[in-house]
Amino acid sequence: MPARPIITLTTDFGTTDHYVGAVKGAILSVAADAVIVDITHDIPPHDVMTAAWVIARAVPVFPRRTIHVAVTDPTVGTARRPILIVTDEHLLIGPDNGLFSFVLEASPPSRIIALTTLHYMREPVSATFHARDIFGPVAAHLTRGVDPANFGDTMETCVRLELPRPAMTPQRTVRATVIHVDRFGNLILNVTRPGLEALLGSDARTIAVVAGDARVETMVTTYAEAAAGAPALLYNSSGFLEIAANRSRASEALGLMAGAVVEVVPRV
Amino acid sequence: MPARPIITLTTDFGTTDHYVGAVKGAILSVAADAVIVDITHDIPPHDVMTAAWVIARAVPVFPRRTIHVAVTDPTVGTARRPILIVTDEHLLIGPDNGLFSFVLEASPPSRIIALTTLHYMREPVSATFHARDIFGPVAAHLTRGVDPANFGDTMETCVRLELPRPAMTPQRTVRATVIHVDRFGNLILNVTRPGLEALLGSDARTIAVVAGDARVETMVTTYAEAAAGAPALLYNSSGFLEIAANRSRASEALGLMAGAVVEVVPRV
Amino acid sequence: MPARPIITLTTDFGTTDHYVGAVKGAILSVAADAVIVDITHDIPPHDVMTAAWVIARAVPVFPRRTIHVAVTDPTVGTARRPILIVTDEHLLIGPDNGLFSFVLEASPPSRIIALTTLHYMREPVSATFHARDIFGPVAAHLTRGVDPANFGDTMETCVRLELPRPAMTPQRTVRATVIHVDRFGNLILNVTRPGLEALLGSDARTIAVVAGDARVETMVTTYAEAAAGAPALLYNSSGFLEIAANRSRASEALGLMAGAVVEVVPRV
Repeated sequence: MPARPIITLTTDFGTTDHYVGAVKGAILSVAADAVIVDITHDIPPHDVMTAAWVIARAVPVFPRRTIHVAVTDPTVGTARRPILIVTDEHLLIGPDNGLFSFVLEASPPSRIIALTTLHYMREPVSATFHARDIFGPVAAHLTRGVDPANFGDTMETCVRLELPRPAMTPQRTVRATVIHVDRFGNLILNVTRPGLEALLGSDARTIAVVAGDARVETMVTTYAEAAAGAPALLYNSSGFLEIAANRSRASEALGLMAGAVVEVVPRV
Repeated sequence: MPARPIITLTTDFGTTDHYVGAVKGAILSVAADAVIVDITHDIPPHDVMTAAWVIARAVPVFPRRTIHVAVTDPTVGTARRPILIVTDEHLLIGPDNGLFSFVLEASPPSRIIALTTLHYMREPVSATFHARDIFGPVAAHLTRGVDPANFGDTMETCVRLELPRPAMTPQRTVRATVIHVDRFGNLILNVTRPGLEALLGSDARTIAVVAGDARVETMVTTYAEAAAGAPALLYNSSGFLEIAANRSRASEALGLMAGAVVEVVPRV
Repeated sequence: MPARPIITLTTDFGTTDHYVGAVKGAILSVAADAVIVDITHDIPPHDVMTAAWVIARAVPVFPRRTIHVAVTDPTVGTARRPILIVTDEHLLIGPDNGLFSFVLEASPPSRIIALTTLHYMREPVSATFHARDIFGPVAAHLTRGVDPANFGDTMETCVRLELPRPAMTPQRTVRATVIHVDRFGNLILNVTRPGLEALLGSDARTIAVVAGDARVETMVTTYAEAAAGAPALLYNSSGFLEIAANRSRASEALGLMAGAVVEVVPRV
């Protein structure tokens, strides 16, 4: 544990209701010294895949042993289990629905616990608000040194999601998917530079992206290099290939949204 | 006081301006060790009733002696008084316009103070931003052990709002009101299970809700139990009867918003 | 430094992505005891002028020696430099694009440092996310007592923006500009009471504002004084002349937005 234990929150709760506040109250009732950090509460409702993607971008920047709570939980209260995942780097808490899939790719689970010990929950435990009644309180008790084994029994595995993977076509191009559209309208693709090199070899050096009728060829290092409004390609700050438009929204310029399929084409 | 004093904020200030930041700056200028927790700043502008409802859902989850500041204040600077309400559980600060009405139902006031002592305010006190100049600074001084009596004179009463109450009809049904539509489109009604039982007796066990042409009969415990998109009834995590739709928005499925009147009908 | 060092954040990152969380993670990885305060992350994308205006309203309310990080950075990664500005009151960190222009009017720079020392950055430094890799880490190191000179070389000047200034017309009226429309639809003009007096002398005492076909004459001290929905004038909590409408949006009543030009007319 660091001197002041950190608990991050990533949810689809939005910010108009009492939900986020209630989770923080539940945490502080157990661990008054916890530092609570919001990653985001604006995950689209019920969108586990987006939550999994966003949290995987934020987690590596936090100190080791930070506790990350993620809650996008459309099946709250059903047979899906509340879990704690321990890795060498992180402590991860949430429903067992795949929210931590991409965090675990870089940092595999060393232990998975099904959260069942009522003593560490806020009672009575509701059927519809486990963030307040289970995840928050368990995170808080964890900061106070409770051994993970005390929260419940060990599980062998947890639910893992897979991102759509980039795929070679017969024409030696790569079919890629827009996995996220960010606040600025940047289109983030499911390929990294090493990933493209593994598929295309040295042809990965000079590429274009074809999206419907549009073809984007300009490769830049910074957003401001491209002409204002013109879509361009760059490898972003998390290593993913991204279509961006200088001071403008590439998503609108190209008419694309998350889930859209594009083609990465070697230019040589 | 807990070891690290907690101050929560519930406002209609939104998050696009400097208003929330300024309140936090004013608090930290007096009490650098205060832990400031946002409940929400997205109360609809001037909507005192919604603010009162939301804060009453969050307050019970916080540690005893937490200081709760609520500011939805359309009459700021007029004769309405800035007040501090002390209860056995909480310290409540805001304009005297009923914001704490529903908190006080569960935790009655033991003392109400009209905030008048300039020494504990940020001077010059503006006529239009009491959160920065009065409520925040008073909350901060309170964390430092200032006696409530020092902030001003005791008042006999404060403004209390009433929620619309569920009412029996001649047909032995209950007329209820949608008091809140949450981020997920869940429709929260102004009745609890004990409230329904008081009105309907054992007939409260099996109910339907009639809203315009629609009739919702399925009673569930968790959101995922109902068919996807189909409206269903449940008692939510705060005890209220709620119309929800699995992975969908009941508000849109039924075309209802806050203030809508529905009928709770015994099915036996 | 105060007992617990405070770092504020003002950005155009929005709250739907991992960006804000990543910056906080980067700060806490260096300075686990930093208190991080969000001013706003909802600056319109790339809108440096609005960011500069908003941050100048919040900064004066914070304790001396607070570290303010502002990032609206359309030219991130280009020749524009990352800088630290030291004033007698504040420590200001961000891109050198004018974000702190209006803070510096009240608190001139005593020292400007170009941030170049890699040792205090998060490596590898990306070309597109300096908030995570440079601004956040430098702010965190600053809380730990690192001398500003260690971060890089001193610069003579930094980029300064100018607000549109109110101007006299031949008719002895004042042409003013709407510099900000706040959450409540209040129209904030680029004139203060002393500014108007400097231009109009004693004629500044009784004024009207003419905006297109509309003429607003009622001067109030509090929002609730005016008739509901009727636009009125007041000097707001930051000293600026503002057109507001009681429990309503003046921006919609008058059809005005930021950048609109209006005329301030003496009434005597």
